[in-house]
Amino acid sequence: MIEKYSIRTDLALEQKERFESDNVEVQGVVLEEDYDEEREIKVTTVKIETENGAKTMGKPVGTYITMEAPNMAVPDEDYHQEISNELAKFLERFIKSDKEEYSVLVVGLGNRKVTPDALGPYVVDNLNITRHIIREYGRYAMGEDAVNLISAIVPGVMGQTGMETVEIIKGIVKETKPDIIIAIDALAARSSRRLNRTIQIADTGINPGSGVGNHRNAITKETVGVPVIAIGVPTVVDAATIVNDTMENLIAALESSETLRGVGVVMQGYNAAEKYELVKELISPHLNGLFVTPKDIDETVKRISFTISEALNLLFSKGHAHIKENSVI
Amino acid sequence: MIEKYSIRTDLALEQKERFESDNVEVQGVVLEEDYDEEREIKVTTVKIETENGAKTMGKPVGTYITMEAPNMAVPDEDYHQEISNELAKFLERFIKSDKEEYSVLVVGLGNRKVTPDALGPYVVDNLNITRHIIREYGRYAMGEDAVNLISAIVPGVMGQTGMETVEIIKGIVKETKPDIIIAIDALAARSSRRLNRTIQIADTGINPGSGVGNHRNAITKETVGVPVIAIGVPTVVDAATIVNDTMENLIAALESSETLRGVGVVMQGYNAAEKYELVKELISPHLNGLFVTPKDIDETVKRISFTISEALNLLFSKGHAHIKENSVI
Amino acid sequence: MIEKYSIRTDLALEQKERFESDNVEVQGVVLEEDYDEEREIKVTTVKIETENGAKTMGKPVGTYITMEAPNMAVPDEDYHQEISNELAKFLERFIKSDKEEYSVLVVGLGNRKVTPDALGPYVVDNLNITRHIIREYGRYAMGEDAVNLISAIVPGVMGQTGMETVEIIKGIVKETKPDIIIAIDALAARSSRRLNRTIQIADTGINPGSGVGNHRNAITKETVGVPVIAIGVPTVVDAATIVNDTMENLIAALESSETLRGVGVVMQGYNAAEKYELVKELISPHLNGLFVTPKDIDETVKRISFTISEALNLLFSKGHAHIKENSVI
Amino acid sequence: MIEKYSIRTDLALEQKERFESDNVEVQGVVLEEDYDEEREIKVTTVKIETENGAKTMGKPVGTYITMEAPNMAVPDEDYHQEISNELAKFLERFIKSDKEEYSVLVVGLGNRKVTPDALGPYVVDNLNITRHIIREYGRYAMGEDAVNLISAIVPGVMGQTGMETVEIIKGIVKETKPDIIIAIDALAARSSRRLNRTIQIADTGINPGSGVGNHRNAITKETVGVPVIAIGVPTVVDAATIVNDTMENLIAALESSETLRGVGVVMQGYNAAEKYELVKELISPHLNGLFVTPKDIDETVKRISFTISEALNLLFSKGHAHIKENSVI
Repeated sequence: MIEKYSIRTDLALEQKERFESDNVEVQGVVLEEDYDEEREIKVTTVKIETENGAKTMGKPVGTYITMEAPNMAVPDEDYHQEISNELAKFLERFIKSDKEEYSVLVVGLGNRKVTPDALGPYVVDNLNITRHIIREYGRYAMGEDAVNLISAIVPGVMGQTGMETVEIIKGIVKETKPDIIIAIDALAARSSRRLNRTIQIADTGINPGSGVGNHRNAITKETVGVPVIAIGVPTVVDAATIVNDTMENLIAALESSETLRGVGVVMQGYNAAEKYELVKELISPHLNGLFVTPKDIDETVKRISFTISEALNLLFSKGHAHIKENSVI
Repeated sequence: MIEKYSIRTDLALEQKERFESDNVEVQGVVLEEDYDEEREIKVTTVKIETENGAKTMGKPVGTYITMEAPNMAVPDEDYHQEISNELAKFLERFIKSDKEEYSVLVVGLGNRKVTPDALGPYVVDNLNITRHIIREYGRYAMGEDAVNLISAIVPGVMGQTGMETVEIIKGIVKETKPDIIIAIDALAARSSRRLNRTIQIADTGINPGSGVGNHRNAITKETVGVPVIAIGVPTVVDAATIVNDTMENLIAALESSETLRGVGVVMQGYNAAEKYELVKELISPHLNGLFVTPKDIDETVKRISFTISEALNLLFSKGHAHIKENSVI
Repeated sequence: MIEKYSIRTDLALEQKERFESDNVEVQGVVLEEDYDEEREIKVTTVKIETENGAKTMGKPVGTYITMEAPNMAVPDEDYHQEISNELAKFLERFIKSDKEEYSVLVVGLGNRKVTPDALGPYVVDNLNITRHIIREYGRYAMGEDAVNLISAIVPGVMGQTGMETVEIIKGIVKETKPDIIIAIDALAARSSRRLNRTIQIADTGINPGSGVGNHRNAITKETVGVPVIAIGVPTVVDAATIVNDTMENLIAALESSETLRGVGVVMQGYNAAEKYELVKELISPHLNGLFVTPKDIDETVKRISFTISEALNLLFSKGHAHIKENSVI
Repeated sequence: MIEKYSIRTDLALEQKERFESDNVEVQGVVLEEDYDEEREIKVTTVKIETENGAKTMGKPVGTYITMEAPNMAVPDEDYHQEISNELAKFLERFIKSDKEEYSVLVVGLGNRKVTPDALGPYVVDNLNITRHIIREYGRYAMGEDAVNLISAIVPGVMGQTGMETVEIIKGIVKETKPDIIIAIDALAARSSRRLNRTIQIADTGINPGSGVGNHRNAITKETVGVPVIAIGVPTVVDAATIVNDTMENLIAALESSETLRGVGVVMQGYNAAEKYELVKELISPHLNGLFVTPKDIDETVKRISFTISEALNLLFSKGHAHIKENSVI
């Protein structure tokens, strides 16, 4: 249970896994898994159904869909088109609008100038923006392929704006009255293996930190007034997470090592609290504010952001009926 | 008067010059000039004092200060510091806040991805942003050098956002309640000689197009609810302007040419309306949407944007008392 | 013939058109035209076959293929794939390598920081670079789809490097010994209607200025030692060109105008030299160093650069046999 | 000695510290320290004087000067000017040219698109480039302030070019014949506390990996033919380094912990090789290719790159005589 104190993950899936690894059953949380063998895409749906489940998970009530595709980091254009297609399909489930035509504000969160944080801004760069055209010339100006009103903003981060992002979004929502927000953000994962290979979609909006309760800086239906769908890709791991994992591995190794069997015997004599005390001393304060990311992050962020913007362009165009075809899951 | 139909300038100074060249006196508009010989900085103040003057000028009532400095395009750091200092001084006159501490929203208008239009975004890149720090840790966190709350936004252009910029700004103002807005924008000049050598400051906000009346897309006290100071630098000339100027020159030359004296005689027989008809036919529709800009625009926009952000940083820091010293004008 | 003195075009096609409009037949230059109605792609091949032809045209002996596609500026992905395919096909004709596998150095000319000049750098950003992988792991590492050794450089412009680009390229060629160079550059057109709608491919390399003779700053087989294929897209028009065109139109109008018939009669009395003298006086020296470009240049340069990099990726992958299929021309 | 197997540092200073922490005296390596209390700048000079020393240190024979200034990460402009001044002074010692005027090629190493790796490219962005002007107009064109011929290149990284950087540099050197190269690169430190607070200058060039011997990919006098001065700033720590450090801390804690005394006793019974075996198992293969960097890396890289380019501009201008004045160390 050491990790409770120091580990951060933005993936509901990883949060659930932690409880599983501790053999703890979480009340009010339902897990579904689906695997598309041919395309090697694993889809996990975590539903947090009760406030109790939310409290345990440290994430608000809602549905979290995670697509894991090991080849997402590979530059195969056809494969990325399939992922775009799947993603569009999942997003459509969340939107379930009874309006035939709706108005969407896409928010590209993050700092364009820090490579692994630029995912949101890059997605916005490649979107088909239509709101101003439709308002000026009417829906028929777009042809029948695009009748939804798409607007987008890259608000910047607090160090650049001096404002909470939610202040900016709330203001824009009041003025432009979109039906729904889709917010794209770079996430922190617990496992470096998930970096740039995973997309999480959630109907819960963006919840900083522990993420439960009506945090004033959250970007959610409660704070901005319209539903917020979040799309996230883990591009970094907190430095403290990697260090913590290693220490756990070391302690586990000490407990089971042939070579160091004697140590293991002693370690087993100590309880979790004592182990935690030991680890806490060792986590360097210099790790705060540090993150871990891959060396080829420029290429992978560029590629995945393009995959997401293609999914959104597909979703928003009228022709999204055909998204469902060819769909396996 | 040909130019009335086709010429665009965002500089009040150039608008005034047009009437002067036509020997037309404009009622309700006052002009003051000042020249700092040593530093070769010419400062012109155009005050539009009546609605009639505004109508004639095609610009709202207010004060427009223009600094012209031929060396502004030259990479001389000391010289740029002097310009920053002058600029800070002029801005201070406009702010005249009775509050000792005030809250400013700086808006970097324009498209970061089109070099001559990137001025506003570049200025914001180099600002000292303080609002979030002061709100979190109090004014004393900043030392005594900076007690104003500075926030900033780069909203993007309509093609990127699908929204009118004023919608975005209005929303943010409602949420964050600044005392004043300073909006930075790249301008169109009439004369290519003024490109990147001129800074205009106005207390009238941003007024697209003809700029009179409460245009719904203007960013002014009327539309956003707080005073808006505009800082602009001409970085482009409309293609139609350059063509028009040449045609006027040609017609003038025909009228006075020794070689083509015969033509001149004939031309003099035609009135302005007939000449205008001639010119209108010749302005290619392909010139719409085209602009003219210098080849070294990357260097000059970078340099001038830095000069402006330094002026703002100087102005916003508590130490702005000393701006006035060493000041010539 | 006024234009001879002031007009610049980097398109062989436009140079040829000038002589045609003057009803001058150019010896040693052959023109072929092809029109693909369905896709609205016009392909013009200008072959300069003799040194005399080269001297008249102001461009070196060689073959210049121009693809004009009005919809190239439109964001239609399928259409851009067809253009990529056509472009790959034309490039393949030029390469005609007897080697089954060859080594290519792609050079992205221009200034990344001036939007209309960023075409070359942007093309390089999206290329599949393979030389280092093949040299490290052998050809089989790439699968059978890519066996050519592709390298690339974005040298920057002289103001950034202090070096002639040919110095940089010559040095790199000596060290890395490619079989061929493909150089991508933004061009100046004479007609604003061709901006961002035209691609020129030439087997003559890059020839600055008048472009004939072994100019020391040219990037050609003579100066760098290996064949150089040039791919160019006109993204700007010189400011002087637009002004000149307007003046010609005005003079032509004066000569034929009903309203100003009297002027026309007089004008017809003057010869070309007298008219040129008139025009020369009027071309402002302030136009030097100014260029004209469209307001949406960020979007069009991004889109066309992507189309060209896709063409190159298609060409360089082993699967380029299939480029020829589906090909109309 | 666990760290020998897994730790990477590009700082000679940190390499030396490792031996000191192990109480190992390194033959042929001399250390000098200097501390400027007022400005809190610590300057350490490591001289590797013998091949034996080089072998032990894993770095070539030469002089490595390290400036450590904790406030380097703080946005204080005056302080940065002092660091620029100091840096210029140290660089001047290395250049010791007997020519009154020399020609310098500045090389901005690294990947512009990965924020912590963009240091070199950013430095080049702000340099005063003069070679092309002096060659065109003579030395007097520059005024007396700049008579050295400065050229610069941002070669890109191997994944972008398909070429070893040394191939590119070697070729350019042969064509343009500079007297000296100054290469700027982002480094990996061992300690996260040194990130963005340290500048290392070395007269040994750039030596990838272990760095001893004439590695074919090194950028040194041996490989490119002219002296190479390297300027580096640590902006990242390898992920494996941080993990390793933590494990060492944990093992040390186990050996001394009051709580876990029993474990310590057992651990002390194992030798370094056994401990190493344990650690090796635990270092995740997923850590390869991952680096650690601070969240505000965009601001710090921008600021420090500007400090370095100012130092170079100062050094290269004729007025560098005055660098020495006001100098404390």
